[in-house]
Amino acid sequence: MTDKTSNQMWGGRFAAGPDAIMEAINASIDFDKRLAAQDIAGSRAHAAMLAATGIVSDSDAEAMREGLLTVLSEIESGAFPFSKALEDIHMNVEARLKEVIGEPAGRLHTGRSRNDQVATDFKLWVRDQLDAADAALVALMKACLAQAEAGADWVMPGFTHLQVAQPVTWGHHMMAYVEMFGRDLSRVRDARARMNECPLGAAALAGTSFPIDREMTAKELGFDRPAANSLDAVSDRDFALEFLSVASICAMHLSRMAEELVIWSSAQFRFVTLSDRFSTGSSIMPQKKNPDAAELIRAKIGRIFGANVALTLVMKGLPLAYSKDMQEDKEQVFDAADNLMLALAAMDGMVRDMTANQGALEAAAGAGFSTATDLADWLVRVLGLPFRDAHHVTGALVAKAEAKGCDLPELSLEEMQSVHGDIDKTVYDVLGVHNSVASRTSYGGTAPEQVRLQVNRWKEILG
Amino acid sequence: MTDKTSNQMWGGRFAAGPDAIMEAINASIDFDKRLAAQDIAGSRAHAAMLAATGIVSDSDAEAMREGLLTVLSEIESGAFPFSKALEDIHMNVEARLKEVIGEPAGRLHTGRSRNDQVATDFKLWVRDQLDAADAALVALMKACLAQAEAGADWVMPGFTHLQVAQPVTWGHHMMAYVEMFGRDLSRVRDARARMNECPLGAAALAGTSFPIDREMTAKELGFDRPAANSLDAVSDRDFALEFLSVASICAMHLSRMAEELVIWSSAQFRFVTLSDRFSTGSSIMPQKKNPDAAELIRAKIGRIFGANVALTLVMKGLPLAYSKDMQEDKEQVFDAADNLMLALAAMDGMVRDMTANQGALEAAAGAGFSTATDLADWLVRVLGLPFRDAHHVTGALVAKAEAKGCDLPELSLEEMQSVHGDIDKTVYDVLGVHNSVASRTSYGGTAPEQVRLQVNRWKEILG
Amino acid sequence: MTDKTSNQMWGGRFAAGPDAIMEAINASIDFDKRLAAQDIAGSRAHAAMLAATGIVSDSDAEAMREGLLTVLSEIESGAFPFSKALEDIHMNVEARLKEVIGEPAGRLHTGRSRNDQVATDFKLWVRDQLDAADAALVALMKACLAQAEAGADWVMPGFTHLQVAQPVTWGHHMMAYVEMFGRDLSRVRDARARMNECPLGAAALAGTSFPIDREMTAKELGFDRPAANSLDAVSDRDFALEFLSVASICAMHLSRMAEELVIWSSAQFRFVTLSDRFSTGSSIMPQKKNPDAAELIRAKIGRIFGANVALTLVMKGLPLAYSKDMQEDKEQVFDAADNLMLALAAMDGMVRDMTANQGALEAAAGAGFSTATDLADWLVRVLGLPFRDAHHVTGALVAKAEAKGCDLPELSLEEMQSVHGDIDKTVYDVLGVHNSVASRTSYGGTAPEQVRLQVNRWKEILG
Amino acid sequence: MTDKTSNQMWGGRFAAGPDAIMEAINASIDFDKRLAAQDIAGSRAHAAMLAATGIVSDSDAEAMREGLLTVLSEIESGAFPFSKALEDIHMNVEARLKEVIGEPAGRLHTGRSRNDQVATDFKLWVRDQLDAADAALVALMKACLAQAEAGADWVMPGFTHLQVAQPVTWGHHMMAYVEMFGRDLSRVRDARARMNECPLGAAALAGTSFPIDREMTAKELGFDRPAANSLDAVSDRDFALEFLSVASICAMHLSRMAEELVIWSSAQFRFVTLSDRFSTGSSIMPQKKNPDAAELIRAKIGRIFGANVALTLVMKGLPLAYSKDMQEDKEQVFDAADNLMLALAAMDGMVRDMTANQGALEAAAGAGFSTATDLADWLVRVLGLPFRDAHHVTGALVAKAEAKGCDLPELSLEEMQSVHGDIDKTVYDVLGVHNSVASRTSYGGTAPEQVRLQVNRWKEILG
Repeated sequence: MTDKTSNQMWGGRFAAGPDAIMEAINASIDFDKRLAAQDIAGSRAHAAMLAATGIVSDSDAEAMREGLLTVLSEIESGAFPFSKALEDIHMNVEARLKEVIGEPAGRLHTGRSRNDQVATDFKLWVRDQLDAADAALVALMKACLAQAEAGADWVMPGFTHLQVAQPVTWGHHMMAYVEMFGRDLSRVRDARARMNECPLGAAALAGTSFPIDREMTAKELGFDRPAANSLDAVSDRDFALEFLSVASICAMHLSRMAEELVIWSSAQFRFVTLSDRFSTGSSIMPQKKNPDAAELIRAKIGRIFGANVALTLVMKGLPLAYSKDMQEDKEQVFDAADNLMLALAAMDGMVRDMTANQGALEAAAGAGFSTATDLADWLVRVLGLPFRDAHHVTGALVAKAEAKGCDLPELSLEEMQSVHGDIDKTVYDVLGVHNSVASRTSYGGTAPEQVRLQVNRWKEILG
Repeated sequence: MTDKTSNQMWGGRFAAGPDAIMEAINASIDFDKRLAAQDIAGSRAHAAMLAATGIVSDSDAEAMREGLLTVLSEIESGAFPFSKALEDIHMNVEARLKEVIGEPAGRLHTGRSRNDQVATDFKLWVRDQLDAADAALVALMKACLAQAEAGADWVMPGFTHLQVAQPVTWGHHMMAYVEMFGRDLSRVRDARARMNECPLGAAALAGTSFPIDREMTAKELGFDRPAANSLDAVSDRDFALEFLSVASICAMHLSRMAEELVIWSSAQFRFVTLSDRFSTGSSIMPQKKNPDAAELIRAKIGRIFGANVALTLVMKGLPLAYSKDMQEDKEQVFDAADNLMLALAAMDGMVRDMTANQGALEAAAGAGFSTATDLADWLVRVLGLPFRDAHHVTGALVAKAEAKGCDLPELSLEEMQSVHGDIDKTVYDVLGVHNSVASRTSYGGTAPEQVRLQVNRWKEILG
Repeated sequence: MTDKTSNQMWGGRFAAGPDAIMEAINASIDFDKRLAAQDIAGSRAHAAMLAATGIVSDSDAEAMREGLLTVLSEIESGAFPFSKALEDIHMNVEARLKEVIGEPAGRLHTGRSRNDQVATDFKLWVRDQLDAADAALVALMKACLAQAEAGADWVMPGFTHLQVAQPVTWGHHMMAYVEMFGRDLSRVRDARARMNECPLGAAALAGTSFPIDREMTAKELGFDRPAANSLDAVSDRDFALEFLSVASICAMHLSRMAEELVIWSSAQFRFVTLSDRFSTGSSIMPQKKNPDAAELIRAKIGRIFGANVALTLVMKGLPLAYSKDMQEDKEQVFDAADNLMLALAAMDGMVRDMTANQGALEAAAGAGFSTATDLADWLVRVLGLPFRDAHHVTGALVAKAEAKGCDLPELSLEEMQSVHGDIDKTVYDVLGVHNSVASRTSYGGTAPEQVRLQVNRWKEILG
Repeated sequence: MTDKTSNQMWGGRFAAGPDAIMEAINASIDFDKRLAAQDIAGSRAHAAMLAATGIVSDSDAEAMREGLLTVLSEIESGAFPFSKALEDIHMNVEARLKEVIGEPAGRLHTGRSRNDQVATDFKLWVRDQLDAADAALVALMKACLAQAEAGADWVMPGFTHLQVAQPVTWGHHMMAYVEMFGRDLSRVRDARARMNECPLGAAALAGTSFPIDREMTAKELGFDRPAANSLDAVSDRDFALEFLSVASICAMHLSRMAEELVIWSSAQFRFVTLSDRFSTGSSIMPQKKNPDAAELIRAKIGRIFGANVALTLVMKGLPLAYSKDMQEDKEQVFDAADNLMLALAAMDGMVRDMTANQGALEAAAGAGFSTATDLADWLVRVLGLPFRDAHHVTGALVAKAEAKGCDLPELSLEEMQSVHGDIDKTVYDVLGVHNSVASRTSYGGTAPEQVRLQVNRWKEILG
């Protein structure tokens, strides 16, 4: 392939060639070569349509379509010599096509422009990522479901403010993440449905006078319909921003789960043991087993949300239609997508591999007066105290236990009655952690039966 | 209402009262009083359910429900003495309810917690904002549609890189924004459907042992169903983040339209005249008529997206379930929602009021060789040149016209033929801007007939 | 004060008055009234200069200066009726001044504009915040120093990856924060020095033809010099962005310390006890003592960095000179400054009040083979092993201890020698946590003597 | 080099090797190989110090130092086979060193850790970037100075709100950017001075018991002093965040200048002609000459500030000392630095190459009643009107001229006197644009003499 510049290809208007700085800032081939398969699929659909509408001959279209497959196989083999002087994937492919098939290559760009071409390529790429995120979320949810099913009745501390609040079940905690990732999945699917309109045929910005068939290319490329406004079609990057928004919220969920795994892996908590596969050692402290994967997942929100910020800054205040600023869209989305997929896969693996330390969880669940709420509820339910009064009585009993250095069940009945005379021995029935979780049978509550109900609901949904 | 502190209300555990700094950082009543109506609606639904399930007596529930209406009317009248020592809207309402109805007030908090209460209140508030954004977007789209319909065949320059590229129609340009705001509307509706699950009854984090009926309160408050996991229900702020994400993309669209209005209002463009209602003067330059509203709308993306960043930072890495960090959610969403609604209303007003300067638009459309693409297309269509060759010939003709200091239609046939001998006089048919836009009849193109087709489609959708 | 609109004040160009939406989006008086004192100080300096240069008479200037004091006292008393129709603090003050002193008020605005006036006011406000941050940082650093001095030799676990790594001292850990806050302090001072140039006299954007003395007003207002370019002076918001950048990094430090306090307060760690003043109870779980202040401080980075994002978005791509977009600067900086000062004060209070649980710290320091590095270093130092070999031997010893369920000091000499035959009993000298920390005497290391050296260095610096 | 994993190097604790996902998320060699030169410089300084303090023999140190040079030359030649299994640059270098020099390589890691090693490497890299930014800013400022000097008295419109406000000079406008970039330069230098403390010797987190000499390594590597707290030294990333903050504000300035160049290049403004070197053509519109470089520079703030957001999110809430999350620091800073340098170089080139269209600038300066302020000032100065009254009179004169369709100088004296009877013919002296700019001689004003004064001041500063 000759390395003459794109400007040279475009004809004689420019006397001076772009210098090194301009090439460095302007050329996108270093990253947009990732769109090669999408670019060629788009061009092949376009060629077929040009023939079907009589704009080019069938034989020219056939030459283009075959030649594009040749170029694709060269790229996939790694042998394709990408040229920076040709700036981008579109010109690289087209220049090579001309070498392969000659003159008909010059007819491929009829009725389209780089503006609608790049929008189409990029949309196809983002759509693939939405599908990949869909699959990765389903896998991760299944990993959480498996943990939840196994530990539907394992008792652990439920925290608020990282203080032990009430006993909950391991299964219930795992199912909280299923709900979060389920919302992520729902957002991914909404985004995919919304973005599935085809820009091809919008041309530079105004549409074209060639009698193209936009329905045909849209259908060929798996889009639901052609985009309805050519100015919008070439200047829209909502699909990329919505992908980044969806990815950002998902990354936030991952950061929360990862934070819990880091804390739970500490010597002070010991709630879970991560597998060696997802831990590493230290170069100086041989005893360390570090939750590196969890930490890295926790951090991934940085670059994913950073990409969201970056593209929002780029798009802010851009007049219609296409501006070159928009070339800054792809690297951000590529990096965010790569890292989201990696983080989802790593979390999936970690959740599958990890072992809950049932004994440590249960021991911790009983500490810190965690059944105080059960006591307060008992005072309401059995003694008929208003909730606020029951709360006050419970506070006094906790203070008494704390002073004595024991937990609530270790208070004697006399000690209890010294705070409120009507307390009787049936109060002890509600003070154990297993009793506590079993009693929380309200819909969505932590009782094992509720957890199993939700596990089964989600298993049906995910198939 | 007494001004004893919440800690004092909660019983005797704390010896020292919070000091001024703690009160300042901890109390939320200054902002969460905006949730008063939602808080009272939630409490009234909860009270009705407590009676229906026999947890409290009918008469107690009736007293609560009536008392809550009294408190609401006090708040709405502006006479309610909000207390900072009572920290938040929930405690302010409950403390006042106790003064109004006495002992039964103490039973209202049965089977719930501040954690599910605040999540419910805040969701109701955000849901209202989604509905308001829905209405505001529809109004703005109708304003754009009216402009598009009036100017479906007014010719103006279509820009890329802020360089004149090809002639387009005013209606087509307006319809590009209809597409953008249409996607915003679609996102608003998806977000509303997804978030419409009721947290109430999740209690502190684990659900409750009281036999509550979560379906009943969910239905009463207009939710589609109760949230399925109590831990998630109290620690989820996806609905707020998704609102901010949707608002951010919408604000980006507004910033682009506002930028265009600022540029179009300049003395150099004069494409539009903004109404006096949405312009202001200068304190020192009496001749100035500044597009202040457009500038302020352009800037609103700052605080709206800033709120998105803020809440993402807050939620990053928070372990389950509720953490006090989450109290930082509301001010961000309040401010973003207020400013989004204001920006949408101001843009609606500006678009309705503004006058396109038809003459200036048409004059500009013809400048800058804007029909060069039409010429290139003619070379392909009529002379059968490959596109890339036609492009080269056109470049040479533009260079010739530029050297001569004229536009393309002013080149003589001889001059044209000196570049390519086969050019004949029918080429002049495609060089006028009206011919140009009329020819772009591909679906979604700028031809007036295409614009009218889209206007009618959207008018049917919006009703 | 009459409530005629500013546009009405500015003369007859505008037929239509701004409607409610425009007033809502355009008026800034609701927030820029916080600049009242700065605005009046700036006007008083300007008036004095106008007289000194002969632009106005001495008696007029005196009337202005006295009248401005009257207006200031009205504002400070809370009695001033701010008018939204007058838009901003500048017009509110000037309109009132005219009522107070009559005709001379109309001469005050000679040789200046709202553009340089607002830049001056806002700079003075931000400068005050930098001074306040300076004082708050010094106070917080002194609180950390006091903790460090008291616990210079208390042993605690040093963590990496939240895994116990090596023993460190409490004092050393506190001093790490002194270093961080010390860098914040240094940034605050650099920012103050850089921003201390006076915009007043830049007028609208071009300077003025009146023979003003910019050195005089600059000096009067405590600036180091007048800003050197009038276009820049009215369009520069670097001082606000740099304040937000500095505040963001500081808030990041606070979030790290707050995270540690939250973790350390958990039942599983129990490293510190926070005072009741900075903790709160739960409405449903009477036993809870929540580290609310720490959580809220941790969250403050959200709104502080969110403000940074917001203002960056606003300023992106603004052509010179002043654009109305820039009115969005103040609320962001006000909110960030208020919350930074609150977070610094709360952290200061928490650090002063908190109690390190020395016993729990020391017990935890010895767990998890935390002296493995000391063992490895002994193998290098005493036996002459290359570091990597020593590391390998240590790993084997840790594995042996782990299998046996003991810590390193509990391994017998035979067990040790079974891994490496040259180990002798002097190895036990380095395995205790107190020995470990005492040995780390490299500059900046955790040895108590090093900690005390740094405490003394900082005490001298801070005075 | 063998491709055994790092875990295998570290000894036998881990049974299972990390699988593909873990390698993908954990290994940093793909990007941290950019630190090779810094890593080797740090190791060479460390080796020299180990010998000087007697910790290793002189011959071992000499072998290390020579061997490291060999490794460096292998890397620089491009022949070095980086191994992903060895994870990072540190292990890649050390493993290869062992192959080159054998056993002494195992002694190099004595008294240090990867934690202080990576902090040192990264600081050295960032320091180089600060120096590069310093040079690039100076070059760009000189380009602006050259434009300013050439056009110190060329008249152009000064804008506020993108409305013509008052005439200014081209030189004055260029000098506004010199002020902005001058502040950037000042921030770069402050950041460099603050960050120039050496982490080496902090070891893993606690310092070391080896008698190392931290002053010696600090001095050898060009640092001002060793970092004073080992915990802070390994967990501090302020230097990276401050670099990103400084870069972000600079990128904001670049975005403003780029926006102006895009607007000024439009057919409607034609204020400047960009060189062909920094423009490109269109694939479909041969007449287009697009300001691509300006657009791309305008967009660069996205990824630069996005990196700032990313790293802030990563660091938020991290407990001390090192966490693996911090591995996400480097790619963000690399990308931001590369793009900042590229944007500065491209802007430098564009400014040097661009041609101001003097005629278009002067014609535009006189339009839009741009000397209205001069008229108002004349009324104050000559007729003694209070400013607010003069403003009102001017407004009326502008309205009269607008109604007549002429500019202010075209109003007859009678027409002027019909508005205010005292106006005489000397008023015409101030209404020309050259008179206007010449009169604004206040310090920092737009008068050519003021511009030249500032040009000379900056030329002296920059040398």
